[in-house]
Amino acid sequence: MNKPSQYLRLALLQLKRFRNREENLEVVTRKIEAVMEDQKPRLICLSENFTRSSGFHRDPENVRDGYCFQRLPELARKHEVYIVGGTIPEKGQNDEVYGACTVWDPKGRLVAKYRKVHLADLYVKAGFTYLESARFTAGNEFSIFEVDGHKIGLGVCHDLRFEEMARGYRNAGCEMLIYPSDFADYTGFKYMELLQRSRANDNQLYVVTCAPAFDPTAKHFSFGHSMVVDPWARVQVCAGEDETTVVTDIDFSLVKKVREELPIFGQRRLDLYPKAKEMS
Amino acid sequence: MNKPSQYLRLALLQLKRFRNREENLEVVTRKIEAVMEDQKPRLICLSENFTRSSGFHRDPENVRDGYCFQRLPELARKHEVYIVGGTIPEKGQNDEVYGACTVWDPKGRLVAKYRKVHLADLYVKAGFTYLESARFTAGNEFSIFEVDGHKIGLGVCHDLRFEEMARGYRNAGCEMLIYPSDFADYTGFKYMELLQRSRANDNQLYVVTCAPAFDPTAKHFSFGHSMVVDPWARVQVCAGEDETTVVTDIDFSLVKKVREELPIFGQRRLDLYPKAKEMS
Repeated sequence: MNKPSQYLRLALLQLKRFRNREENLEVVTRKIEAVMEDQKPRLICLSENFTRSSGFHRDPENVRDGYCFQRLPELARKHEVYIVGGTIPEKGQNDEVYGACTVWDPKGRLVAKYRKVHLADLYVKAGFTYLESARFTAGNEFSIFEVDGHKIGLGVCHDLRFEEMARGYRNAGCEMLIYPSDFADYTGFKYMELLQRSRANDNQLYVVTCAPAFDPTAKHFSFGHSMVVDPWARVQVCAGEDETTVVTDIDFSLVKKVREELPIFGQRRLDLYPKAKEMS
Repeated sequence: MNKPSQYLRLALLQLKRFRNREENLEVVTRKIEAVMEDQKPRLICLSENFTRSSGFHRDPENVRDGYCFQRLPELARKHEVYIVGGTIPEKGQNDEVYGACTVWDPKGRLVAKYRKVHLADLYVKAGFTYLESARFTAGNEFSIFEVDGHKIGLGVCHDLRFEEMARGYRNAGCEMLIYPSDFADYTGFKYMELLQRSRANDNQLYVVTCAPAFDPTAKHFSFGHSMVVDPWARVQVCAGEDETTVVTDIDFSLVKKVREELPIFGQRRLDLYPKAKEMS
């Protein structure tokens, strides 16, 4: 049981990706060492699809013995730090593939696993078409873990679009949501900040994204711009598009303050909302 | 029954307010005449609390014979235009007071009435404290009306904060939400645009606000900035803080296009959202 703490130092690893997972894991190892030596974060976050630069669904693994998955608890234990392990393709019982986010505590124990629930199927004519569901299978559960007395809800990228999911986490007592992401440049530019600020503002909690760096040589252009939005919906910190490690301190007392000053959660008319449907 | 039409010309009257209702109604009459002569909108929208500059709850009226309420159908009929009549204090059966938005069709018939559901009780320490519930009683129903084949949902100001309400209107088939508003300068500056863009983005519809002009001599500083946000969450038009009439053409085909290109509504996992609560 961790002691409640007002502050949480967060590190977001916004990395360029290589084609193979070994090389990517090497970079992750080096970057975690560097930031631990320098700023000792309590929690390190990786991006969606951080293990390769293309074919995100390839070489799916089991969590308990997969090459990539198992590097994470080693690093967490070695550096005594929480790691939110972005996403890695996870092999299901019938060889289906999930985008799985695993969370490891400072003793290297698995404290949460989340399989991306909302797959990004988009048909933006001016931009691009993307059918994630052709390669991945959707998860069926949400996932919360706790750090130093604070509940944190997990989502991945396109999940940000779904207000009901974030609201569910708020209902469950979360003070922060973390979405490892890999927004495409086109939609990221238009919506990433708006979506994060919307979720933070409506639910009065911190919203964190961690994305790969922009790489013009990659098949998929990541938007970068890993970001932390505070419970007042202010952008607390936002990376550019290049490779960088963002370190920032979260002050959880702000969650309480915002909820007291704008007590909108208690003002909701849950008795009335279902009736709107009847008008259709 | 109106013919379905792709376009809707909208006029938002962002007016300075005087202390007494007679003077305000005179200005409204003149401004409606001017915009009808000039640009012939199909729908004219007034702001919350447009009938006086202070004591918004004073002199509550009945809709059927109230001085302010009854000017609206006269104007609608005379100019053959839809009028969304901002809010006027409405007297309830037990002398309680509602912030009531009435909508009148071009024949001067009442087609919708909405009583503000979420009253603004705020305790922003750095800004201001405001207890609307000390003077007004909350409504208990949502309200939709239809113009030329398009459903429009009604809300008022602080209602914008409640995602479930906007989502209810989307569920009921709305393509536009109109919120006559009177955001205070302090919170308006920080949240008005974010809230409108959030609702438009999450529900893929038009969101319209109409507010009084900023007036440094008034007791309550309105933020102004009457605004239309389109279903891509872009600000289509936004007034400044001064008195002005904003006229803009709505293209409802954009609603359909956005919903096709980003089919997030059908991607929702309504089976899963209630389960998040169980994790608490």
